[in-house]
Amino acid sequence: MSPSEQTIRFGIMGCADIARKVSRAINLAPNARIAAVASRSLEKAAAFARANNLPADAKIYGSYESLLDDPDIDVIYLPLPTTLHLKWATLAAQKKKHVLLEKPVAVTVAELDQILGACEANGVQFMDGTMWVHHPRTAKMREFLDDKHRFGELRTDNIRVKPDLDSLGALGDAGWYGVRAILWAAGYHLPKTAVATRAPVLSEQGVILACGASLHWEDGKSATFHCSFLTHMTMFLTAIGTQGTLQLNDFIIPFEEHEARFSTASQARFNDQVTGWEPGPVTEVVGIDGVPQEVCMIGEMARLVGEIKASGAGKVEMEWGMRSRKTQQVLNAVKESIEKGFVPVEIA
Amino acid sequence: MSPSEQTIRFGIMGCADIARKVSRAINLAPNARIAAVASRSLEKAAAFARANNLPADAKIYGSYESLLDDPDIDVIYLPLPTTLHLKWATLAAQKKKHVLLEKPVAVTVAELDQILGACEANGVQFMDGTMWVHHPRTAKMREFLDDKHRFGELRTDNIRVKPDLDSLGALGDAGWYGVRAILWAAGYHLPKTAVATRAPVLSEQGVILACGASLHWEDGKSATFHCSFLTHMTMFLTAIGTQGTLQLNDFIIPFEEHEARFSTASQARFNDQVTGWEPGPVTEVVGIDGVPQEVCMIGEMARLVGEIKASGAGKVEMEWGMRSRKTQQVLNAVKESIEKGFVPVEIA
Repeated sequence: MSPSEQTIRFGIMGCADIARKVSRAINLAPNARIAAVASRSLEKAAAFARANNLPADAKIYGSYESLLDDPDIDVIYLPLPTTLHLKWATLAAQKKKHVLLEKPVAVTVAELDQILGACEANGVQFMDGTMWVHHPRTAKMREFLDDKHRFGELRTDNIRVKPDLDSLGALGDAGWYGVRAILWAAGYHLPKTAVATRAPVLSEQGVILACGASLHWEDGKSATFHCSFLTHMTMFLTAIGTQGTLQLNDFIIPFEEHEARFSTASQARFNDQVTGWEPGPVTEVVGIDGVPQEVCMIGEMARLVGEIKASGAGKVEMEWGMRSRKTQQVLNAVKESIEKGFVPVEIA
Repeated sequence: MSPSEQTIRFGIMGCADIARKVSRAINLAPNARIAAVASRSLEKAAAFARANNLPADAKIYGSYESLLDDPDIDVIYLPLPTTLHLKWATLAAQKKKHVLLEKPVAVTVAELDQILGACEANGVQFMDGTMWVHHPRTAKMREFLDDKHRFGELRTDNIRVKPDLDSLGALGDAGWYGVRAILWAAGYHLPKTAVATRAPVLSEQGVILACGASLHWEDGKSATFHCSFLTHMTMFLTAIGTQGTLQLNDFIIPFEEHEARFSTASQARFNDQVTGWEPGPVTEVVGIDGVPQEVCMIGEMARLVGEIKASGAGKVEMEWGMRSRKTQQVLNAVKESIEKGFVPVEIA
């Protein structure tokens, strides 16, 4: 068995709704298994284990501390509310546990920097829980975006999302996906400025219910996103290049699990009579070979952890952490732009 | 033969590229025929007649004035450059010719008001040359948007266009379509304010090559559009309601002439395991029964003119003119917002 094929032991910290899906993914991933689940209540942890087909030998803990003290855990999967991330992710790293952290990863960039610093200092892997980037469709879409002939240079992209996943503000939830997708399309190059769109919708308590922003790069590229808790579930992404366009309407969670689609148009012109397109768009269908995107994510995390374990502690891969950090930087700039009256905010 | 079935005689004023497509549409429309074509050069008009299968009895004129003086012309189709619209559309109306005017209809709202005033005073019909609103798909999409159960209330929509139709600024060309589509989705209710997106791209001569804006309604509804001459041809429209989402990628000119599609999702939720959508999206396919959208447009213009002719001069239908005017109002507000440094501009 190669280092990347050893079975990595996951501990689930907190029984949030999303943990059901991730525990299924850990069960399905060939190089991962659920070794423990912890809740602040032993009964709740036990009920979660029963309801989600956890392995019979998975340990049940009634506190997060005891999970962190278990020497037989490699990775902590942490779906706690965002405000608790700093404390528990940092503690997990200090206990030499690798960290798979649900999004949004932190309230501020400064908090995330503490988490990432703790991971690096303790030689543990960090990854956030964004699943769609691990879907094989995403790699196929990357091929299209990287094709100078079919797509050319990215000029603009545009995202609208409204998943009903959790109760955090729309910017941290749907906005996280929108910003992450924009950064993905832009090859993770940070924009220079963010400008919030006017008239965001806030709750009486100041929670963002709907907002948007435009992002602007030094090279003239631009992107817009909009996120809302107030509309029908919508998650489209359109990336427009000089030679082609990529479009899909289900980038966060594909309509169907077994296969996912995206549409491309390239070098399109109107026909001579201006009554149609030549060539027309192409729909690409990407099957998952029985491995859903969240299983790909767990598999990738386990592979990275396996390599670290095999090589002895030391240098960890920081790219996933940097991607989380850039997402957080943009989100915070958008929030600042809203607070300052829709002025452009420089992204450091 | 009912009034609306009489054959209406069209005169084509100017041999612009788009006139090829419209002359084909007039040839195909059962209640319309091409009675004349005019250019500033007799040779050019004759060459156009030959190249575009104009009827053998169509008259060929070497000046626009002689076309307007022909008593056997009912409608002038006017595809001249925008800066010439005020002069020639007004003259046409004064000569009691109905006016089918290419977009963008005018440089300013004040100019358009002169044109519309001349049409109303002279009892002639006005319509702009926006073809997609006449496609039977548009009526099917309207049904979806008007369905309180499937779509709910419109909250936001979003348009990106880059057709390569003519050499005018992107705001007047692609932007015209984007704004018109937004107004269409909003039931032609004007937004309260327009705010241009920062960092539009201007040529050295100050022509808008790429820009965008967000539009905001009193009721909290919002829309964004982006238009560009610098990207691959792209024309998507997404309308997001409280209960559903409408999406299509070819709203200006469908990918194929014989049938057009759009996608809807309604009351969608994630499934229990959060691994797919329930229900998924539905693709609706709308055939054209051999009548392309531009033929529908000509047919509608001829029908309206036929009714006016049958009833004797008098009251003309002004709704098409009002739609053009609202589009122009929003375009001008966006331009003003760009010029004033991206401030919100009230739409009167």
